[in-house]
Amino acid sequence: MRIVALAGGIGGARFLRGLKEAVAPGDEITVIGNTGDDIHLYGLKVCPDLDTVMYTLGGGIHEEQGWGRTDETWSIKAEMKEYGIGPEWFGLGDRDFATHLVRSQMLSAGYALSQVTEALCVRWQPGVRLLPMSDDRVETHVRITDEEGTRAVHFQEYWVRLHAAVDAEAIIPVGAQAAKPAPGVLEAIAAADVILFPPSNPVVSIGTILAVPGIREAVAAAKAPKVGLSPIIGGAPVRGMADKVLAAVGVAATADAVALHYGAELLDGWLVDTADAAVTAAVEAGGIRCRAVPLLMTDVAATAGMARAALELAEEVRAS
Amino acid sequence: MRIVALAGGIGGARFLRGLKEAVAPGDEITVIGNTGDDIHLYGLKVCPDLDTVMYTLGGGIHEEQGWGRTDETWSIKAEMKEYGIGPEWFGLGDRDFATHLVRSQMLSAGYALSQVTEALCVRWQPGVRLLPMSDDRVETHVRITDEEGTRAVHFQEYWVRLHAAVDAEAIIPVGAQAAKPAPGVLEAIAAADVILFPPSNPVVSIGTILAVPGIREAVAAAKAPKVGLSPIIGGAPVRGMADKVLAAVGVAATADAVALHYGAELLDGWLVDTADAAVTAAVEAGGIRCRAVPLLMTDVAATAGMARAALELAEEVRAS
Repeated sequence: MRIVALAGGIGGARFLRGLKEAVAPGDEITVIGNTGDDIHLYGLKVCPDLDTVMYTLGGGIHEEQGWGRTDETWSIKAEMKEYGIGPEWFGLGDRDFATHLVRSQMLSAGYALSQVTEALCVRWQPGVRLLPMSDDRVETHVRITDEEGTRAVHFQEYWVRLHAAVDAEAIIPVGAQAAKPAPGVLEAIAAADVILFPPSNPVVSIGTILAVPGIREAVAAAKAPKVGLSPIIGGAPVRGMADKVLAAVGVAATADAVALHYGAELLDGWLVDTADAAVTAAVEAGGIRCRAVPLLMTDVAATAGMARAALELAEEVRAS
Repeated sequence: MRIVALAGGIGGARFLRGLKEAVAPGDEITVIGNTGDDIHLYGLKVCPDLDTVMYTLGGGIHEEQGWGRTDETWSIKAEMKEYGIGPEWFGLGDRDFATHLVRSQMLSAGYALSQVTEALCVRWQPGVRLLPMSDDRVETHVRITDEEGTRAVHFQEYWVRLHAAVDAEAIIPVGAQAAKPAPGVLEAIAAADVILFPPSNPVVSIGTILAVPGIREAVAAAKAPKVGLSPIIGGAPVRGMADKVLAAVGVAATADAVALHYGAELLDGWLVDTADAAVTAAVEAGGIRCRAVPLLMTDVAATAGMARAALELAEEVRAS
């Protein structure tokens, strides 16, 4: 079975770890990763979501933190502070820097991001085929208004420096309109037996992937059952600040509103947490099959259970 | 008094620390640093000699090692090994990497190496004006013959990987002929009251600086007394493998041969170690005043004594 998953960072990566446990031997997982949160720092290209997937599935992630490397050191960050060079609010550890150095050197040599990602995965052996959504530069910016006035800031600045404490007025995936899907992305979607929407941020993670012209259309046209898992439980994001960016696109932070935001064009099935069992009827009224199952990724076993429920719902869709 | 010193890496840097102790308040030291051992690694520009001077005079050097940073960590090096990316033989610590990141980003932004060096020195406050010999790329290569045949390798590969264990057949300062002295270099030489040749490698450090068209001529034409200190004591280099590269240019590894290699055009005075007192006559026969004094840089006080002896010899030249 060929499974395609669209994934953001921490939530997506953790779900994928469960998915790997849930699939049968021989099943192939292709991950289409968000690159809208990429950022250029110190002349290097940093791809936080791709790296979070790669490190999580490859055994190098800092488990408690959810991002960055285990056994990390922070010498470069300390030195940059001494040199007076920011941003201080962004945490790049020394081990993580090595990945960005390798990536940036390969990009400078003319390799595409998808080729670089494949090369990095030779080391990490994530057990999935990891494709960036696009080889072209896309950077999600967020329009805000604060004492400095109305302006657009990089998503990382909004998320990491400002902790999403100010309202997001608009989410702008800069460059997305001109971006092309990376090689293999449309082919993987078309050939998929199941397409999954992990509990990633529906706006700045999966929404950005879908903003690359051709990807949304390919998912909509795909014959495979498409099943998603709600990142919202009981009216709040399980982690992160998805409610802030959902508000920017006029979507309530509820499990049913997110499903209906994707819509029946993109989703055949939707899993909500048992705490949200009451909303299944509203989702089904939108033409999307909905089941309530435990959705907290407390450990790999629980996450594998979620993945199994998603695959079962996909089979139910297929059989219908 | 305006003092100009041509300097390589470890030996030059340690001498300069003594020189700073020896000079009077208000004296100005301009260091013209060798950049021929610069190397590009991981897409970054690494300037080992400039950094050794900067770290040594700025209090950041690894004292025992003589190069690199104190309190260094090695995470990136470990990661590069995991990625299978060399060279393994070159040691770049994490703190050191930060310097190369800052430098490379500034170079990419269009700043010249001399401007970047000035910016880095804002942090390090070396107490001297540190100028690269040139803003243009010069890389010293060494021609060798071994089981892989006759070929030219980067000086760092010859020195660090091969430990100069094979004979150097030729020293090739690639790019030197087309290089221009960095802004301020010729002006500093012309305006100097004293010009010093620290006990740096006469071929691959000071020789490379002099290979930049205009610098040798400026030193020769300068009115200031020019005094050097022998890097050879008792027929062997005090540190490093200078004898190997001296052989490549047909110069014996003796204190007098090095002085005569520079010649009376470049040198008015020469200090040899007391162990080499017997060669002073041979040096003076070449038209260069020569004194025998202790030349082991065992500590800063001893090194300051060497610097004082050099300045005294310069005054003697001036008064003559």
